[in-house]
Parts: sequence; structure tokens; C-alpha cells
Amino acid sequence: MAENAENAREQGHLFVIDFGELVAQVANHSLRLTSLFDVQESAAATGCSVAGSVAEMLADLGVEAVLIASATNTHAALIEAAAAAGKAIFCEKPIDTSLARIEQCAAAIASFDVPIQIGFNRRFDPGHKAARDAVQAGEIGALHQVIITSRDPDLPSRAYLETAGGLFRDMIIHDFDLARFMLGEDPVEVFAIADALIDPALGKAIGEVDTAMIVMRTASGKMCHINNSRTAVYGYDQRVELLGDASMLISGNRKPHALTRYSATAAEQAEPYEHFFLERYREAFALQLDAFADAIEQGRPCEVGFEDDRQAMRLAEAAYLSLAQRRMVLVEEVRA
Amino acid sequence: MAENAENAREQGHLFVIDFGELVAQVANHSLRLTSLFDVQESAAATGCSVAGSVAEMLADLGVEAVLIASATNTHAALIEAAAAAGKAIFCEKPIDTSLARIEQCAAAIASFDVPIQIGFNRRFDPGHKAARDAVQAGEIGALHQVIITSRDPDLPSRAYLETAGGLFRDMIIHDFDLARFMLGEDPVEVFAIADALIDPALGKAIGEVDTAMIVMRTASGKMCHINNSRTAVYGYDQRVELLGDASMLISGNRKPHALTRYSATAAEQAEPYEHFFLERYREAFALQLDAFADAIEQGRPCEVGFEDDRQAMRLAEAAYLSLAQRRMVLVEEVRA
Amino acid sequence: MAENAENAREQGHLFVIDFGELVAQVANHSLRLTSLFDVQESAAATGCSVAGSVAEMLADLGVEAVLIASATNTHAALIEAAAAAGKAIFCEKPIDTSLARIEQCAAAIASFDVPIQIGFNRRFDPGHKAARDAVQAGEIGALHQVIITSRDPDLPSRAYLETAGGLFRDMIIHDFDLARFMLGEDPVEVFAIADALIDPALGKAIGEVDTAMIVMRTASGKMCHINNSRTAVYGYDQRVELLGDASMLISGNRKPHALTRYSATAAEQAEPYEHFFLERYREAFALQLDAFADAIEQGRPCEVGFEDDRQAMRLAEAAYLSLAQRRMVLVEEVRA
Amino acid sequence: MAENAENAREQGHLFVIDFGELVAQVANHSLRLTSLFDVQESAAATGCSVAGSVAEMLADLGVEAVLIASATNTHAALIEAAAAAGKAIFCEKPIDTSLARIEQCAAAIASFDVPIQIGFNRRFDPGHKAARDAVQAGEIGALHQVIITSRDPDLPSRAYLETAGGLFRDMIIHDFDLARFMLGEDPVEVFAIADALIDPALGKAIGEVDTAMIVMRTASGKMCHINNSRTAVYGYDQRVELLGDASMLISGNRKPHALTRYSATAAEQAEPYEHFFLERYREAFALQLDAFADAIEQGRPCEVGFEDDRQAMRLAEAAYLSLAQRRMVLVEEVRA
Repeated sequence: MAENAENAREQGHLFVIDFGELVAQVANHSLRLTSLFDVQESAAATGCSVAGSVAEMLADLGVEAVLIASATNTHAALIEAAAAAGKAIFCEKPIDTSLARIEQCAAAIASFDVPIQIGFNRRFDPGHKAARDAVQAGEIGALHQVIITSRDPDLPSRAYLETAGGLFRDMIIHDFDLARFMLGEDPVEVFAIADALIDPALGKAIGEVDTAMIVMRTASGKMCHINNSRTAVYGYDQRVELLGDASMLISGNRKPHALTRYSATAAEQAEPYEHFFLERYREAFALQLDAFADAIEQGRPCEVGFEDDRQAMRLAEAAYLSLAQRRMVLVEEVRA
Repeated sequence: MAENAENAREQGHLFVIDFGELVAQVANHSLRLTSLFDVQESAAATGCSVAGSVAEMLADLGVEAVLIASATNTHAALIEAAAAAGKAIFCEKPIDTSLARIEQCAAAIASFDVPIQIGFNRRFDPGHKAARDAVQAGEIGALHQVIITSRDPDLPSRAYLETAGGLFRDMIIHDFDLARFMLGEDPVEVFAIADALIDPALGKAIGEVDTAMIVMRTASGKMCHINNSRTAVYGYDQRVELLGDASMLISGNRKPHALTRYSATAAEQAEPYEHFFLERYREAFALQLDAFADAIEQGRPCEVGFEDDRQAMRLAEAAYLSLAQRRMVLVEEVRA
Repeated sequence: MAENAENAREQGHLFVIDFGELVAQVANHSLRLTSLFDVQESAAATGCSVAGSVAEMLADLGVEAVLIASATNTHAALIEAAAAAGKAIFCEKPIDTSLARIEQCAAAIASFDVPIQIGFNRRFDPGHKAARDAVQAGEIGALHQVIITSRDPDLPSRAYLETAGGLFRDMIIHDFDLARFMLGEDPVEVFAIADALIDPALGKAIGEVDTAMIVMRTASGKMCHINNSRTAVYGYDQRVELLGDASMLISGNRKPHALTRYSATAAEQAEPYEHFFLERYREAFALQLDAFADAIEQGRPCEVGFEDDRQAMRLAEAAYLSLAQRRMVLVEEVRA
Repeated sequence: MAENAENAREQGHLFVIDFGELVAQVANHSLRLTSLFDVQESAAATGCSVAGSVAEMLADLGVEAVLIASATNTHAALIEAAAAAGKAIFCEKPIDTSLARIEQCAAAIASFDVPIQIGFNRRFDPGHKAARDAVQAGEIGALHQVIITSRDPDLPSRAYLETAGGLFRDMIIHDFDLARFMLGEDPVEVFAIADALIDPALGKAIGEVDTAMIVMRTASGKMCHINNSRTAVYGYDQRVELLGDASMLISGNRKPHALTRYSATAAEQAEPYEHFFLERYREAFALQLDAFADAIEQGRPCEVGFEDDRQAMRLAEAAYLSLAQRRMVLVEEVRA
């Protein structure tokens, strides 16, 4: 573990959420942020003590829980170390881009009974959550179709894309999780197409796609469609639509404000979209930490855990298999 | 009467609604358009017989009802003639721009018991009507405030403005009627300001205003605001808002279609407004003729009649008095 | 041909669009509706002459064009007869539910050079058309994804479903055409899933599905998703979304009016959707006849013709093949 | 001064904004919250030192600026004391409910050159501010009309109402300021009506109104309408509409999220409004402190100052005069 963590340290971005956010958020709880391990200067500014090493931090008996927001390839090792140290764990998604490594991590921590929450923040978005609550409460009757629209505003850098693990594992993993959350059961079949439509040259150079469409089906027959793009020039587009036999729900995009301009040619909303995930899912980021804190304080399991990450990753692998074989793939065909 | 009607004929625009509309509309009823008096070529195209004179048309025992859509200054005389001939009457608003002439007409037809409907079409707009029905059904609790927004897309020609009778009598008369319709009782007090903001030079030249704000109050204390403009460059703006103590209603503008464009800078609805009254109140024009036909067929009074025109005109006169005296005016101060 | 047409006559529904609509619509053109063949009483009410037989009508040299709105299984024969008689043809979609019969019809009329327009009315919807015009004008840059939502308000009767030809050929045929219209090129690959989720018992009894999801791809890589349901209890849901690399368009649903109710618990739009296709596509029905009339008058080809119907039907057949084989199917695999 | 401040202390609510908000907010700046004077327990939780008295706090040379959020009747005295001590001042509106006391305060601090900002937070709302920026940039052409809708969700307690200073001075004062902000010039004429429609019995008992409509005009002829209610059961309703001769702007209400439910009878947005001012103007509260900090750091005048409070209060007094005399009142008629 130590090697990977040191490696993360050298990469210099152990925490990706800025500290100001964390301090403000954690302050609303009985939790208190006491100790940080980070080589970025920002850590010092929080007034927290800065640990000399991850090992030192985990050895501190005063530390009850750890927030893992380091580089993806350090997640599994840090989870294993934290679990062994008996800490409650909040870890950014994904646990790893390799399903085999996830399975290995699962085995490693199987004997430690610590709360683990994975950062599938979208489940905590007030609109998405209200939609799912309505489904659970039977408000839409039998759920027939889920349609998820998920588009990022800008293509990430080539450097990012080369190590991100692929569109399905890096970006759509959130949508696979959201699909499971909304469907209320696991998809058993996956079909996917994907292509490099935004930057074909880059796609060819690094063997990566940037645009995708997916269709999934659950055992009970529910259907789910996901459409994705790495570049929606108009903004971060995050919508979920749920068709039931009694009604239909759409959890749409949020606007920073509600100014409309009416000219001779158009009615126009300036800034119709929150810019990106930090703005769009601002409350969701806060609420998922609330839920983590609540789970610890109340001694109950986290709402979204290790198994959710593993299942989402299995869907990503099934999508890659479908892409290769141009056919509907059974999720059970996926082997770690 | 004959003189005025002949006068109208010479002006060459006896009917302002195009005949195609009328033919299609009347065809939905037991009514049939049989005879027209008009010097426009369009009349012939309908296949109806064209009467040689108004007198001839009114003498035709086969004619049960007349639609008066001629120049405003012929309305009162045509109503008097048609009432004397025992015809059911549909007349475009206003009966006259002179309250004195309206009172005179009222006296002239008092002894004839014929159905009369005035063309306050907005009462028949599906959205506005649904709003008023909700109020009547008690859905919004006690009604406290009515806010009416009423803006035309373009300043009419100087020629039109010089003979139209003034902003309050020509344009806002519709809003006074809509206010009465929504309030469910008559305003007893009126306050108004108005100015020539769109074309100050024209306003000065012909002594006319183009922009106004009005506040009214009913005996039971309900408040009403109307704001008007002769030129809303963005389109024909027709909104009604009803604030009650149990809920609030807004009957808004309608769009020709629902295309939204999402660009890097804005979400934009092209053609956010129906162009003008013929488009915006298309159904209302049809539905008011339906209501007229229904009233005749079922032998019951018309939903909006002579008295409604007179009361709206009294509010316009009160508004002019307020404008002159810069104070709240009692409607009962208005004398014909 | 005669047999089928007589059969249609006995079914008593040769024209499905009510005559009032047709009369009003055709009146706006140099076209005039002169002759009808129908056994319904309504025909008489139009004032047109009623032909004794289809043969008699087609023999009438004064008839320039025919509108075929009879039962689907009579379309091909009527097209063949009308083409042979040199008439311009407007025919409701589809030409036939059998691709083989369509190919046979194509061969039969190949030597007659008459204008033919198929009733894919959605292409003429003002919102959808504005969206497509924007794409054609380059406003959204390169088109990457098309998402079509298409849901009917109510499950048709079992009797209808038993003869309709199947979900893909009867209902989704419109969406296949709309996809081609928006994509600007033909899909070359089709993937489909479908199930009887609304009425599983009925589905089992008659071997029919009521809910579907489709993914298609064009030769240039554009992706298209269609989702369908025979029953959207909230109304007729007709949306098209176009994602380009410069902007995104959504042509949404239309509302009969714009009343919003604000209560303590919700903001609520009553009647948020036009009820069904006659209301939602009212202008489209009118505009497609305008376009047909214009094409005849100006001697140019119809905007949507025989070939469009054939291609849409090929996509339907490809979808059935995909459904059976659970894989992406090449459209070129489809044989008549 | 001391007496009033001690009085405030005994009332036990010196700061009305909760400390968590202030800590998080101030942390974004070079400003730091160091010292508090408050008898509420919450103060201690912030980690700041708690001053023994206002005098002690003002004597602290390390304190550069003070935030006055105490009871309204202590504002003027605290401003006078803080100005005398050379501190930058942020004070919640209004300075006092008595215009005479405001004038007295103005005289008292005239010789001290300290930055003063008044908490007219709505000017900093992103939507409202973008609207005003657009006007300033000439985007809507000549401004003709401003329409402000301002409704609170619930009638305050009788105790609050008895000491609040009256509807125009307590609640509508915000709208008078917003009107000045949007108009870009001072209204010179005011007309107002008001009544106790929500709770007539309470209104009669304490001589207070709860519902109002106002019309104002500026020297250049711009018109402004404000409508108010103490109780909008559907939520906190805050809208500004700006009609210009080139376009029209509406800065509307914000939603906590964007979930829409489509049922057989309606499309429904749950939680269509932010609950009240703390939620609706969350960013505005933060941004006004940002602006205050920026002004201090950059040595420039505050964007909204003492004079703005005085002018808004003059409009409130003019409204009361109009209410009494049922006529348009010149603002210059108002004497302190």
C-alpha cells in the first residue's frame, strides 16, 4: 500500500475537492476535519494538522474516518490500509479501473467490518433523489423505461484521457450507477455503440471513443438508455427521465439564475446550465458527506457502497464486450 | 343608420376578420353564413350571396343573426338597425368610442329583446378561461390581486391612431374587460398614468399616449394592475396573473412551436410568442362565435354583452379622468 | 385492385381525416376538393359530389390528384390504380405493412411519372422542421446524436393491434422516417429491444410488443436512439433532440394553452400536452397538404415520397431481425 | 449609543445571519472574522473571541470593519459609534424606520469618511444583477417599464408586525431599492394602495396592511409598478421585469431542483420556489459581503450605501402619504 500512496503523493493531487468546501461541509456535522495528508500548499491553509504520512494518519486513534480523494490508482490500496486500521471510509469513484483489482480489494477487506461509501454523488442530487424517491413510493406505477443523458462540457486533455481508463469506466461509470439507482434492480443485458466523433484523430491516436449510446435491460424487463458525449458545448447536461405506467418524471438541468431575455427573434436564457460537476452537483457533494457522517453516527450501513462500485464496473466491462462483438451481452458473461 | 353604414361601405372594410376564417368557423355549427354585405372582392370568393345593402340583408327573413365587424363608428347604428330587425347580434368591440353614443344606443335598443354579444374575445382564450374557471371554482381561495400585462408588437400607423379613440378606449378596453372578467366584480376606483414613451414626437403631434400603468380596486378590496405598451418588439405579450390566498395562477403566452436551441451562451426559444391577436387568440375568435351560436340555439343570454362593453368604457373614461387629475378616481364620477 | 377497394368500402372508413378539416385546408389552395368516394354519411355534408366507385372517380378527367386515406391494406392497390390513371397521389403511410408488397407496387408504378407524397406528417411539424432546417443550415455544426421520444397516450384496441402490422411497422415507422429526416442520411445498422410491458397478457395472446428502444448508426457514424411506448398516460409525447458539436436542439411538446397553477406544493401546468396526433400535428397535417399542392402546382417532386416509405419500412424489418437475433443488424441484410 | 446597544443585547439577537454562513463566507476573503459581540450561544461555536461589549470591540485597533445585524432600532446608534471609531460598516437595512432618525444619523457621521454598505442584498442576486447589467449595457434599449413582484411566503407574527415599522418601511423597502437600482434614476412621483386582505382582523387591530400595489414615475418618464403580499402560500415570489424598446427582461424565481412530474392531468414541478430569503438570496447574501470586502480592500466606495437607504425610505414615506390622500404624491413633498 505504502508504495502506491507515496506514488500518489508524488503526483501531488491527493485531494481533488478543494479544502474550503470540505471545511465548510464537515463543519455542519459532529465530524471534524482534523488531519490531512497532502503535498499541496492548500492543505496548510485549512488550519488542520498535516500528517507526515498516510501511515501516521491511520495510526492516529483520534481519526475515525478517512476521505480518499487521491488519484484513482491509489484508491484500492488506501481502502485496504484504512479498512485494516478500522477507519470508516469515503472513497471517490471508481475503486479502480480494473475489475480484477476491485475483486482483489473486496477480498482483502472482507474481514474488516468498516463503513465504506463510494462517491457516486449523483444519487444525492436533490432532483435525481426526489425522482427515485417518487419511484420507490410507487408514484409512477410500474417503471418501464429509464433514459439518462450525460454530457460533459469539454473534452479532457489527451494526457487525462490516456490514463483515465476509457469512456465507459471513467465517465459513464456514473451513469451505470445512476441507472442501477433508478431501475431499482441490476441490468442483466447490455448493448453499446461508441465512436470518436468529437476528435476522430485523437480517438485513433490513443484508441479512445468520446460519444456513446447504450441500451440495457433488467431481469424484470425494464429498459434503460444512456447517451453520452465528452463535449456538449452548451454546458454540462445531466438529465434523467423515468417512464412509468402511471406517470413520467424528468429530473432536468439546473440554472445558476432565472434571467430570460425576450428579443424580436428569441426568448433566451443566459447561463442555462451549471458549468460542470462542481457547480451542478454542489449540493450532492455536500449531501453525500452528510449521509456518510450520518451513517457513521447512527451506526448503519452507507447508502452506496463497495458493491455498487463493483456492479457499475461490471456494466462498463459488459459494454466494452458489446462494443467489440456488436451484440447484446449478458452481464454474467463478464469475468473479472 | 343608413348614412353611417353607407359611409362604412365607402371605407371599404366592413369585415375585418377574413372570410376564410368565418366560413370555416361557422361551418362547425347549425349556423350557416348565407349573405354578406361588403365591397371587398374577398366576399365573392366565399360563395355566399352578396347583399346589395345592409337594409336588404336585414329585411331577409332567412337571416337569423348578423356579425358586425365594420368600422367602429358604424357599430352603434348597425346594432340599432339589426335589433329593430329582430336579428341576433355579434358586434366587434367597442360599440362606440363615445360613452354618450353607447348610452344612446342602449336606449334605442332597450325595447328589442335580441341576443347581443360583444367581441371581447380574450374571455374565450383557453388559458385565460381556465384561469377564471379555477377562480370561480374556488381553487385559488379568496382573490386578492389581478395583474394584466398587455402589449402590442407594433405601433399602429399615425392614421389609425388619429381615429382610434385613444389608448384606453381602443386597446386597453380589452384589458378593462378582462379585469372585470377575472375580478368577478366591477372596479369602483381607477388610477392611471400614461405617456408617449415609444414615439414622443408622434404623441405630441396627435396628443396620444402609447404606454400606461393602471391600478384599480373593487368594492370588496380586490386590487388590479394593468400595464400596457403599444410596442413590445419581442412580440404580442398577453399575460394574466391571479393571486389568491390559496394559490396563484398565471395564464401566459403561447408559442407557435417548442424548439429550443442550446448554444455555448444561451438556451433560446425561437418564435417565443404568437405574432399578434389573430394568431394568439385564434381559438378565442373561434370559441366566441361558438358561444354566440350556442346562445342563439339554446335560447340563453350571451356570455358577454352590451353591458360589459359599457362598463369597460366607463373604466376607460375613469382612467382618462385620473390621468388628468393625477388621483384615484371613483368610477361613479364618470358621467356619459 | 377493385377487390381491395371494395373491401375498404365495406369497412366503411375510406377517409380517416374528417372532411371538415380537408375542406378548410384545401380551400387555401388552387386545389379544390371535388369528388369523394366514401360510404360514410359525412361525405355528403361536404357539398362535394360523391363518386359511385373508385374507378369512376379515377376516370374523371377533372380530377388532378387523389388523397388516399383508406385502410392500409388498400393503399398499394389504390396507388397503382391512381398512378395508372395519371393522377398525383397523396397516400397515408404506410404503403403496405409488407415490404414485398411495397416493392411490387414500386415495380407496378415505375413507368408512370406522377407526383407521389406519403403522409409522414411529422416532417411538416413547425418545431421539427425548424430543427431540421437549423441542422441543414449548419447551425449545430456536425450532427452527432439524434434522440427521438415517441409515445402514444393509449394502447389501441386488441382488434386494431391484431391487424396493424406490429409496433415497428405501424407506430415506429413514423420515428424511422423522422430519424432519416433528421440524420440527413440513411442508418446502415439497427439494434432493437422490445417487450410487452404495458399489457403482458395481451402481448402474449397476440404476439405483440408495446414498448421499445432502438439504436441506429449511419455510415458516417451518426448515432440515433428512439424510445417508444404505446401508453404514456400523461399524453402524446413527441420530442426530437439533436446533438451537434456546435449546439443542441430540442423540438419539444406543445401545450394547448399556458396556464400554470402555483400552489403550496407545486407549480402545475394543466393540459401540458396536446392530446394526440390530430391536435399535436394539426399544422403538420395542413402543411403536408400545402406542400403536396405546391409540388403539383410548381411541377416539382414531393418532399417526401415513395422511396421514403420503403426505406422506413426497411428499418422496421431490420429492427425485427435485431429483435430476433439480439444483435446489431445491417440494414442491407434486409431482403423484401 | 450604549443604551440602545445594551438594549439590543438584552433582546438577544444581535446577529441575525447564522454564524456558520458568516464564517464560510468571510473565509473566501482577506477579511477574517475575529471578534463577536453577541449573547447567543452560537457565537462561541465559531471559534472567534467574544467581545465583552460593543465599546470594547470598537476600541480594538485590529478590527477594521463591523457587520451590524442587530435589531433595527439599534442600527443608527451602532453606525454612529462605528463611524466615530473609524471602522468600515456593513449594516442590515433599514438604518431606521424613522426617516428623521436616518437624517440625524447622516448628520452625525458626516465628518467621518468610512465605507458604509447597506444590506440591500437583492442588488447582488445573480439574476437581478445580470438584468441590471444588461440595461446598463444598453441591451434593452430605452427602459420604459419596471414591474416588481414581491411576496413573502407567510404573514409574520403579530409581535413582529407591531414593531416592524409598517409594510412599506419593513418589507417593500427592498422593492423601493430594487426599483431605484433597475430604473437607474430616482422616482419623483409615487402612488400606492394597500389593504389588510390576508388577515383583516389583525390589520384592524394593529392598524397594519398586508397587501399593496404601487405605481411610480421618474423624471424622465420611466414607469414602475410594485405588487406585494405578505402571504404567497406557494412560496417566496421575487420577480423583476424590465420592458425596453429593444427587448424585455424577466429575472424570475429559482428552483431548488428541476424535477417535473407528468401525470394524466398535469405537468408539475415540485418545490418550484426557494423557500424564503435565506435560500432564494443565498448567493446574494454572500456576494454582498464579497462586494463589501472588495470595496474595503480596493479603497473604493461601496456599491450601495447610506444614501440608498435614505432614498428608499423617502419612497416609503411618499407611499404612506399617497395612501392617506388617494393621489399621486411628489417625493419632494416628503419631509423628514
